[in-house]
Amino acid sequence: MITGKNYIGNLLSSVGTINFKTFNPQTNLENEIVFSEASIIEIEKAVNLATEAFKTFKNISGVQKAEFLNEIAYQIEALGDELIQTYCSETGLPEGRAIGERGRTVFQLRSFANVVEEGSWVEASIDTADLNRQPIPKVDIRKMLVPLGPVVVFGASNFPLAYSTAGGDTAAALAAGCPVIVKSHPMHAGTGELVASAIIKAAEKTNMPNGVFSNLNSSGIEVGVSLVKHPKVKAVGFTGSIRGGRALYDMAGQRPEPIPVFAEMGSVNPVIILPNATKNKGEDWAKTYAGSITMGSGQFCTNPGLILGIKGEDLSNFIKNLSEEIVKIEPTCMLHPNIIGAYENNKAKMLAQKGLTTTADIKSESLKNYGRQAITTVEGDTFLKNTALHQEVFGPFSMVVQCENTEQLELIISKLEGQLTGTILAENEELKNNRSILSTLQNRVGRIIFNGVPTGVEVCASMVHGGPYPASTDSRFTAVGINSIKRWVRPFSYQSWPNELLPDELKNENPLGISRLVDTIQTQNAIIE
Amino acid sequence: MITGKNYIGNLLSSVGTINFKTFNPQTNLENEIVFSEASIIEIEKAVNLATEAFKTFKNISGVQKAEFLNEIAYQIEALGDELIQTYCSETGLPEGRAIGERGRTVFQLRSFANVVEEGSWVEASIDTADLNRQPIPKVDIRKMLVPLGPVVVFGASNFPLAYSTAGGDTAAALAAGCPVIVKSHPMHAGTGELVASAIIKAAEKTNMPNGVFSNLNSSGIEVGVSLVKHPKVKAVGFTGSIRGGRALYDMAGQRPEPIPVFAEMGSVNPVIILPNATKNKGEDWAKTYAGSITMGSGQFCTNPGLILGIKGEDLSNFIKNLSEEIVKIEPTCMLHPNIIGAYENNKAKMLAQKGLTTTADIKSESLKNYGRQAITTVEGDTFLKNTALHQEVFGPFSMVVQCENTEQLELIISKLEGQLTGTILAENEELKNNRSILSTLQNRVGRIIFNGVPTGVEVCASMVHGGPYPASTDSRFTAVGINSIKRWVRPFSYQSWPNELLPDELKNENPLGISRLVDTIQTQNAIIE
Repeated sequence: MITGKNYIGNLLSSVGTINFKTFNPQTNLENEIVFSEASIIEIEKAVNLATEAFKTFKNISGVQKAEFLNEIAYQIEALGDELIQTYCSETGLPEGRAIGERGRTVFQLRSFANVVEEGSWVEASIDTADLNRQPIPKVDIRKMLVPLGPVVVFGASNFPLAYSTAGGDTAAALAAGCPVIVKSHPMHAGTGELVASAIIKAAEKTNMPNGVFSNLNSSGIEVGVSLVKHPKVKAVGFTGSIRGGRALYDMAGQRPEPIPVFAEMGSVNPVIILPNATKNKGEDWAKTYAGSITMGSGQFCTNPGLILGIKGEDLSNFIKNLSEEIVKIEPTCMLHPNIIGAYENNKAKMLAQKGLTTTADIKSESLKNYGRQAITTVEGDTFLKNTALHQEVFGPFSMVVQCENTEQLELIISKLEGQLTGTILAENEELKNNRSILSTLQNRVGRIIFNGVPTGVEVCASMVHGGPYPASTDSRFTAVGINSIKRWVRPFSYQSWPNELLPDELKNENPLGISRLVDTIQTQNAIIE
Repeated sequence: MITGKNYIGNLLSSVGTINFKTFNPQTNLENEIVFSEASIIEIEKAVNLATEAFKTFKNISGVQKAEFLNEIAYQIEALGDELIQTYCSETGLPEGRAIGERGRTVFQLRSFANVVEEGSWVEASIDTADLNRQPIPKVDIRKMLVPLGPVVVFGASNFPLAYSTAGGDTAAALAAGCPVIVKSHPMHAGTGELVASAIIKAAEKTNMPNGVFSNLNSSGIEVGVSLVKHPKVKAVGFTGSIRGGRALYDMAGQRPEPIPVFAEMGSVNPVIILPNATKNKGEDWAKTYAGSITMGSGQFCTNPGLILGIKGEDLSNFIKNLSEEIVKIEPTCMLHPNIIGAYENNKAKMLAQKGLTTTADIKSESLKNYGRQAITTVEGDTFLKNTALHQEVFGPFSMVVQCENTEQLELIISKLEGQLTGTILAENEELKNNRSILSTLQNRVGRIIFNGVPTGVEVCASMVHGGPYPASTDSRFTAVGINSIKRWVRPFSYQSWPNELLPDELKNENPLGISRLVDTIQTQNAIIE
């Protein structure tokens, strides 16, 4: 049952005075439950509980953390239909998407459970002493990754499960040993509370310290600002707009003690279609991309918003095909009146840009809050001269740039801001002959894709979801996959420490049997003195 | 021969109008050579050359990078006596220290050469495709670390070799595949130019692209500011004061495209001496610490500036012994009149603080520019109330805090700013009985030491030289050891990429024979399709 309250540690709480409701974009009506925005007192309490919880949680074994994470996954599944129905009523997304995203969310939790249960992720490294070394003896030094402290996670509007309450940021932070305070996204506060209840149940069942998790409702920016500025908060995870992410990044950087903010923000995800692919496969790609651009009403951070090709008859045919295919697709519901409002607004602004031709634009009345897709095209020169054309239109929108030649194509790529992904559609031979384009593209993105679509982010060790600014605020980390745990940890050294007082990961006996770097050799062996 | 010019890529250049000289603190006279500060034109040229060089340097093999790094080490050694004499004349440090630091510097270069030659440092990770997976096929994704782009390194005043021109930051960045632009430290511009000449010789000899390295002279802050704000610069390394590091960090964070700044800054490196150690080993520790505090005239970032003990006769004896031992040591020359000026100034400010007792203070006239050591003591209450007492006095200075009890000791530790190191002097048994103190200390530091001194930073894989702010601007990285390479790289994914066009690190055949994570198993095996 959804109460509309905050979870301050294990307890429900609603002492604040600001209330709000969520909205069902399918029915165009407010949902019934009244949510209580977290007050300053509740924020303070949540942060203090998290700080206290950190003292024990940071030392909890990997096996215990795995039990906790697996139990969260189980409890989320146990929410059953209520979760799916709440998700749909707060997002306008279809049931299939809700079920798929739930699957992704529990898979992420279980992946991290496996990682921390196995234990080698801490990158244990041991350099043993050499008392006979000249001119000075070598001391014993041992290192491992340790958690940073309480982490604040901002729920993302477009992934109410996989990038929100128990999403990738939260799963990674808990796996690292960091208590988490979620600033719940106001558009899906009910979904957030249900998932939070699952986390709290799991925490209680597996004896985690009170405060290891809190869930704070908020309708405006105040709760988030208070959390990011709080001296006891040690890191921040965010998925959302460039404006929002940059504001948090600046705020965190200006603290007396600056803290890391990992913000995964906007991206137009450039797709480069080379001449032979345009000629021989243009029709197929047009169909595929019509699907990719409209998938989830274009509300993915990896949505292909920019397609770059070489001007000519083949590209003209591709644009024609893409435009014809995309209007065949039925518009779908967007997340919220605010989101569709921003989409229509940004689309209109873009369509009004000089030199831009609209080749597909569903103008007919569609259902309220449904995102009407559009395709536009522009000359390379015009694109180069007007950086307004480089901006993301969040929704089912894409722009095809007709470049004069490969030199201009490469120049355009070099002028793009940082991107999550870059895609090349090409025949094998022409890929080989355009290494310079690949090299330039590589500098601008976190992931490059050959003959595919950027939408769909596989959760695996090799995934990079991040990239040069403004795709993310720190390209040195990924937001997806097990390595995303590294955002929330730091290396820590013990020098000349007594063996029995070292954490198990660094003891001579290697009681956890993990893989360690011992005197420059990677091994699972114990150290025999 | 030292020319006083800048290296803009491989060429010497001096088109600017600002000149300066270095200073010999032993003779209290300026050195003769006139240095030309880099002009805006030269800065622009260096950055553009680095950006061009990055296009090829980022793809150079590990073996070639190793040749380059090893050749730099060789060329530095080949500078012979001229380097050592220049070093001494610009720092006032003794020849033994110069030789030791040169050894450390070439060791660092060779360590990174070994790492990149072997190649597994790129953390290659491969998730192969599974076209039969339901509900959607799994794509092939492969990941490795790639360099960020041109890196600016600020030379440190207190380590003219190991943390300057070809020091740890430069060695790590070149190993990563990033061109480096050094903002040379004005106090040792001659040493800097000599080392730069060795790097340029090595670059030419091993056919590195022009612009892979530049060395810019500067006497003020303008050159550094221009570099950090330059849109083509992608990361910054700095070792020095909190004020300087924070200014660069803020500047980099406020750019349209923020870039990472790794600044290793100040630290008082708290030492906790527990009662039994005070009682049974106090005399020995007093002698050892008198040496550690005055080592290199206290000009180490790991200098022990704060000692915390429990009030009583044993601690009083320790303070007495420490004070007696430290005045027996002859003062030594500090790096520069500015440094000794700041030391005398900060020491005087500290000694004037209410409630502080000075137990050792060499007042007698010593040689000009020699650092006169001092020991002070203060009650725990007084220390807690006055954060001015928490600040670093860079030089041969330390303060003993007499805490009321272990609760107050722990409270004081929890109130300290972030530190590079924390040390515990204790008997084994009392270490076990004070886990709460250890846990609190761990949250504030990057490295903890048992029964030793914080000075002396071993260069090895397990070393963490960094820590919570303000010890460094990002505790998630170390400035020393092979893992410091991670400051200058980011993960990058290839999706569905043709095998023959993948970098060698990610090809099925594993031609480099490196260790890779293949479908979640760490292995050196090739992938058989």
